[in-house]
Amino acid sequence: MKEKFVLPEGMIYLDGNSLGPLPVGVEEVVSRMMRDQWGAHLIKGWNVDGWMAQPARVGDMVGRLIGAEPGSVVMGDTLSLKVYQALSAALQMRPERKVVLSDSGNFPTDLYMAEGLIRQLDAGHELRVVAPQEVSDAIDDSVAAVMITQVDYRTGRVHDMDAITAKAQAAGAVMIWDLAHSAGALPVDMAGSGAEFAVGCTYKYLNGGPGAPAFIYVRPDIVHDVDPALAGWLGHEAPFAFDLDYRPGAGIERMRVGTPPVIQLTALERALQVWDGVDMGDIRAASIALSEQFIAEVEVACPELTLASPRDASARGSQVSFHFEQGYAAMQALIARGVIGDFRAPDIMRFGFTPLYLDSDDISQAVDIMSEILRDRLWDAPEYTTRQRVT
Amino acid sequence: MKEKFVLPEGMIYLDGNSLGPLPVGVEEVVSRMMRDQWGAHLIKGWNVDGWMAQPARVGDMVGRLIGAEPGSVVMGDTLSLKVYQALSAALQMRPERKVVLSDSGNFPTDLYMAEGLIRQLDAGHELRVVAPQEVSDAIDDSVAAVMITQVDYRTGRVHDMDAITAKAQAAGAVMIWDLAHSAGALPVDMAGSGAEFAVGCTYKYLNGGPGAPAFIYVRPDIVHDVDPALAGWLGHEAPFAFDLDYRPGAGIERMRVGTPPVIQLTALERALQVWDGVDMGDIRAASIALSEQFIAEVEVACPELTLASPRDASARGSQVSFHFEQGYAAMQALIARGVIGDFRAPDIMRFGFTPLYLDSDDISQAVDIMSEILRDRLWDAPEYTTRQRVT
Repeated sequence: MKEKFVLPEGMIYLDGNSLGPLPVGVEEVVSRMMRDQWGAHLIKGWNVDGWMAQPARVGDMVGRLIGAEPGSVVMGDTLSLKVYQALSAALQMRPERKVVLSDSGNFPTDLYMAEGLIRQLDAGHELRVVAPQEVSDAIDDSVAAVMITQVDYRTGRVHDMDAITAKAQAAGAVMIWDLAHSAGALPVDMAGSGAEFAVGCTYKYLNGGPGAPAFIYVRPDIVHDVDPALAGWLGHEAPFAFDLDYRPGAGIERMRVGTPPVIQLTALERALQVWDGVDMGDIRAASIALSEQFIAEVEVACPELTLASPRDASARGSQVSFHFEQGYAAMQALIARGVIGDFRAPDIMRFGFTPLYLDSDDISQAVDIMSEILRDRLWDAPEYTTRQRVT
Repeated sequence: MKEKFVLPEGMIYLDGNSLGPLPVGVEEVVSRMMRDQWGAHLIKGWNVDGWMAQPARVGDMVGRLIGAEPGSVVMGDTLSLKVYQALSAALQMRPERKVVLSDSGNFPTDLYMAEGLIRQLDAGHELRVVAPQEVSDAIDDSVAAVMITQVDYRTGRVHDMDAITAKAQAAGAVMIWDLAHSAGALPVDMAGSGAEFAVGCTYKYLNGGPGAPAFIYVRPDIVHDVDPALAGWLGHEAPFAFDLDYRPGAGIERMRVGTPPVIQLTALERALQVWDGVDMGDIRAASIALSEQFIAEVEVACPELTLASPRDASARGSQVSFHFEQGYAAMQALIARGVIGDFRAPDIMRFGFTPLYLDSDDISQAVDIMSEILRDRLWDAPEYTTRQRVT
């Protein structure tokens, strides 16, 4: 599969969990879209080039990778906004309950969006944040919604989707899964889970490019009862009637808001073709093999690092993290030598394993370079210890 | 200026008020961004290619065209979401007031977003929609926010920005302007108006391409008091600290939400270079000349049409609309002959005038074609009378 991606010579890219690489063909397809669609058809592109249907069409492509029913996923906006849409709908479904339950391993923007919504509603809601391993025990009948990210962005720890969903629903809570580090990383069975909502982004394992649009899943049997808080015209039943009153569109279409980002969606749609014929079970097996190799080799060659991820592969997503006090500088030194991972405060060195374009040799080479950096303290240089990076 | 755009041979494009044409250079710049930034730098692009600062940098380019202070505009999301952000903030600023005042000439999505927000807040707010000419008289001390689009999307009627802003503020209301049909169409002086908020899109007169991101302006002296309802991580004071608690970022940065659409922003940033050295006063004068010519010629050659726009050029934006009962079919017949305008229910034929790429000959040719269609009832054919278009 490596030849399906543009990978710079000499770079070992262990950061596909932040931003996937450019798939071969995307540049050409986007150029063609601009020249032959926007450039040639202008406004007519909305009809003749299928732009208006693109959010649902691409949604189904993502849906296949997360075990969602056709017609249950739509693209648009950013993950933060999709979290907001899902949570707002969930709170409306449980007006008598006031607790939003999440965990400290959730990506901060999910918590921020929940905080913002709660402040705005000013109706006595509470965001209750517990440790990841305490989520299940914290579910009780005060909880309106359980809102967690399946794979912890720092440690890679995986929540048990079926067990937590079942517990939440038994307690009468609505379940919202953030699949940011799941989609394209491990098998997900949204339909089988029974969860009401899922959201995710597409610039990580799905390689849609910087700022690629997000997705939202709503369980098909409840979507008709969702009253969208972000009631934009493209979620209207008949956007081009230009009625003054809002009527939500059919099914998942009501989760659309404004004009879709056609250029980004075109890049994403082409990027998703990489997955044609790919089985998520195979990807998961290969990802575990790479991750296990990495942990084993690092623990031998780099004793300064301590594993921050679960040791049990089945409890871990497609990433491995290590604690290291000088993690920031060490990561800069690694990046300078072509091994790209990322740093997450306070001391996490994070590495993503994406079998579509990584193999066993890449892992060994990366560990060799890291071992040299640590052994010779190559990280201890001003150009690495001074914090400048924004991501 | 015509050579700065890709314009299909034989097309007279009078729909730049819906979707601007592809500017020359955009395709190449986007290709280069994908190849030399995303493809070559991957995650490092956020730093080395300036992606993280792009929403503010492009915001300043838009800001210049709407008379906004540097640092007072930021890009992101869609216009619907920016309306929601502005209105949510405005209602928070006037907790004791319950009326949102808008008009029936506002673009429906603005009204839908307001309705959705009001339903969600469930705090007794009311969306009061009056006729466009009645807005000023309807402003009283029950109004929390006046939320209107400066240029009516159907008729092109222009609200008096300074007068309505002054009236709103004298009554203690917060002023929100939607500049969808103003930015790049006529001179706007946001700073001079004193209005608290403005929002707009960039795929119309600013030629950013389908789904180009929206903008939001917040008056610099109040932005520090805005508590964002859509509290995404990129509006956080320190996004990469990954704190569990939200603290709004400095100034206009707090109106950012999620990961910016870098590919769309790159297209837009290049498209905005078209405006380098362009004076909005000159654009306005040329737009009025084209519009006046169009009205005069249509009224002679197409007596079946009746003007739906204000006859006074100073009360009209950069578009002209006519009523015609068979407007839908007539517009399809026009489009089939290369004259691209659009239809807005129930009977509006709408034409946009964009002096950057239209001249007097284009106008005369368009009127000739329309006159022939009407004289010979060429619109009366099944391929034109059957409604199929979505935009």
